[in-house]
Amino acid sequence: MNYKLVIHNLGAILLLEAATMVPSLAISLLYGDGAWFSFVLTIGLLVLVALPAWKLVHPEEKNLRAREGFLTVSLCWVLMSIFGAMPFVFSGVLPGVADAFFETVSGFTTTGSTVLPSFEGQPRSIMFWRSFTHWLGGMGVLVLSLIFLPRISGRTAHLVRAESAGPTLSKIVPRMSDTAKILYVVYGALSLLLFVCLLLTGLSPFDAAIHTFGTAGTGGFSNYAMSVGQMNNVAAEIVMTVFMIVFSTNMAMYFRIIRGEWRDALKSEELRWFLSIVAVFMVLVTLTIWPEYGSLATALRHGTFQVASIISTSGFATVDFNLWAPAAQLLLLLLMFVGACVGSTGGGPKVGRIALMVKAARREVHHTFQPRKVQVLRFEGRGVDDSMISQIAMFLVIYVGMMLLGAMLISLDGVHDLKTNLTAAITCVSNVGPGFGAVGPMGNFAGYSVFSKLVLSVLMLAGRLEIYPILVLFSPVIWRRN
Amino acid sequence: MNYKLVIHNLGAILLLEAATMVPSLAISLLYGDGAWFSFVLTIGLLVLVALPAWKLVHPEEKNLRAREGFLTVSLCWVLMSIFGAMPFVFSGVLPGVADAFFETVSGFTTTGSTVLPSFEGQPRSIMFWRSFTHWLGGMGVLVLSLIFLPRISGRTAHLVRAESAGPTLSKIVPRMSDTAKILYVVYGALSLLLFVCLLLTGLSPFDAAIHTFGTAGTGGFSNYAMSVGQMNNVAAEIVMTVFMIVFSTNMAMYFRIIRGEWRDALKSEELRWFLSIVAVFMVLVTLTIWPEYGSLATALRHGTFQVASIISTSGFATVDFNLWAPAAQLLLLLLMFVGACVGSTGGGPKVGRIALMVKAARREVHHTFQPRKVQVLRFEGRGVDDSMISQIAMFLVIYVGMMLLGAMLISLDGVHDLKTNLTAAITCVSNVGPGFGAVGPMGNFAGYSVFSKLVLSVLMLAGRLEIYPILVLFSPVIWRRN
Repeated sequence: MNYKLVIHNLGAILLLEAATMVPSLAISLLYGDGAWFSFVLTIGLLVLVALPAWKLVHPEEKNLRAREGFLTVSLCWVLMSIFGAMPFVFSGVLPGVADAFFETVSGFTTTGSTVLPSFEGQPRSIMFWRSFTHWLGGMGVLVLSLIFLPRISGRTAHLVRAESAGPTLSKIVPRMSDTAKILYVVYGALSLLLFVCLLLTGLSPFDAAIHTFGTAGTGGFSNYAMSVGQMNNVAAEIVMTVFMIVFSTNMAMYFRIIRGEWRDALKSEELRWFLSIVAVFMVLVTLTIWPEYGSLATALRHGTFQVASIISTSGFATVDFNLWAPAAQLLLLLLMFVGACVGSTGGGPKVGRIALMVKAARREVHHTFQPRKVQVLRFEGRGVDDSMISQIAMFLVIYVGMMLLGAMLISLDGVHDLKTNLTAAITCVSNVGPGFGAVGPMGNFAGYSVFSKLVLSVLMLAGRLEIYPILVLFSPVIWRRN
Repeated sequence: MNYKLVIHNLGAILLLEAATMVPSLAISLLYGDGAWFSFVLTIGLLVLVALPAWKLVHPEEKNLRAREGFLTVSLCWVLMSIFGAMPFVFSGVLPGVADAFFETVSGFTTTGSTVLPSFEGQPRSIMFWRSFTHWLGGMGVLVLSLIFLPRISGRTAHLVRAESAGPTLSKIVPRMSDTAKILYVVYGALSLLLFVCLLLTGLSPFDAAIHTFGTAGTGGFSNYAMSVGQMNNVAAEIVMTVFMIVFSTNMAMYFRIIRGEWRDALKSEELRWFLSIVAVFMVLVTLTIWPEYGSLATALRHGTFQVASIISTSGFATVDFNLWAPAAQLLLLLLMFVGACVGSTGGGPKVGRIALMVKAARREVHHTFQPRKVQVLRFEGRGVDDSMISQIAMFLVIYVGMMLLGAMLISLDGVHDLKTNLTAAITCVSNVGPGFGAVGPMGNFAGYSVFSKLVLSVLMLAGRLEIYPILVLFSPVIWRRN
């Protein structure tokens, strides 16, 4: 393992994190909420640690291999979360270190699970930073670093591949830093459009910003204890429903649409699967909760919002779906195992993987009944071989395995019941946010022990980084010399 | 599809079912419980339907292809369950047709989920038949038919393969009917040994017979409402714990041990995985419930019994594990996703499949970090290629998919909560028996609607027959001409 290279790169990325705190500092000064020192202190600490790492550690060998890529990404996310947690601690909003770390990991990973005891009267800059981590984590901090620090050492493809979902990123344009720029421009433009739309629905600029970050990053942090439901603004809910779907699709698609390749872009098989699942589940959930609400319009309002919120892995809520009929609860739980599209800001196992598994399973059934008939599996117009199927299946095995192990470890607390523990693990690894039981949309994760909060933080990171970068931290390759 | 061949074979197998009801008829006459007419009537109906099917329908083409094998097996199990349900209906023990069908499917599939409203005062012959279905279903009725009806038409390998777990059956001896004989001799001898051991612990001959059938078939029906716990016999519990483990292993192994190949037999990789999982989970569960019971001896008694009961997919209970700490509940839930060994009488996804998935996942992680290193996956001493891994992964995908679809359908009842519905689907497809919540070890499935009972019956059959034979019933190949 080439440690010097890893440390050098981490230094550069952490300096960038210091820069991302400047807007929060400005908000603090603007509103005069008194939390400015938390950001000044954190930025100071970041510079103190990161500058020497970047400037003084020079790797001899600049070739970044897969394992260095994975390690850089995982350490980057862990360190970012540690420093990102400091404003919560310094400002006294979350004085417990484990709580602050959990909240920050939940922010960066765009999960949206919270341990915040109260929402009213918190410093606005802290609430801003809390939600801004969603926006940064959604598209990826390493991707961002490629724009501002194009001279970051090593082959950057490995970095980006380890941070983002699926192998699609490298396809847009030849140079990685240009790709990163394009992605952030698309992301920024869509976010701005969302912000304007939310302003037009009557939200205050602050509320609009918070919910733009949460929607664009598919995170789900709100500045209200009752989430979006507390604002009781149907227009804003509709805007958010649409944009949660928009941000759950492959960001590269919008670039291709702008370039005029909209026919190719919309031909994506994953997109069609995703939109079909969204439509079917919106209908099913609405029908299931219709009797509870009496009115079809109300059922449609909450049903469509909640389906978009869960499949996009945002986790916003307009009502306490914890109290819905068991069939509706199960439908939402199933969506947590689907997630958004590859290359989106959303989490979960991703629609593309699930769709491929469904197609492969269907072929397996046909093959069993008609063993002599040869059937080639195609996805996105290309043939898929057994090695690819096995690779994706193994990803899902590890995904579910980590989730079950996590559920087991947090069960040791003995505080919450089976349902709460299992759905807490699912919602964290899938980066959704709320679960069922005590961790439902109107509940929170504060009841867990420090140990459980760390376990859930690992699950959130593993889910966001698609498992492998986090596994490398527990693997012996990390200790091997070159 | 060669229907004449299927009907001809089904006729023969149903005649055999009529013969399997004779012991229950004898029990009825012996104890004078007044239920004899239920069996006479059912046997009469079976002969009336099966004899013409066997004697009058003669297939021109006797070549049994995979799809005819699957269809024969699935129809055989459905018809067997319909006729097997009749004594429950005729005797008035379960007057509802759906209840009687559910109970019989649960019996033949060795699940052990029950809808019986009361256990006391039921006709002994009906309780005997209920448990005897476990014993028959454990090793397989088609396997039995190969002994008594060796002239059954077509290549029997397809039949046996479709009914039994894994492709190991055909390996013992060249002729399939000899293999079937050997398996039933081993099965019968072990069952007899268990029966004698249970008698020695002080159980009455009737209790000993009931619990022998439930243990040997890894079914789990007891003649007591509080299951094994009601007898409060530690010696019997220890005997059952040992034999639940014995019957969860590959039956062919005992034949090889008898033949003197015990060194080869015990070298099985699956066996080592199975015993390791059993040992680890026994320790973990015991430690987790220790605080609840105060005494280590009591925790060990219930912990070891319950782990053996769940991993063997028997489903007997000595206590209401529904009330255990959440961590212990989760451990048992995990075991439901493992199941017994390939070629045993137990259900679930099978240890061999899970072990192979774990090994493949581990290789995938290594491959991701060190892409240039080639690693061959070996299981049971043989190389495993991607096509095999993909095949097993797809089996698990379909398995989980059916379970989730089943949970969804039974949720529509709106009677039970999410936990009950999900664990009901899991316990049925894995052929375990009890779940958590309202379907816990001291609860039952009576609260579900007729529709849900049918859905759960399909899940039990799908689990027992390893999915594909049941899927063929919903597949278009069934309608195609030759």
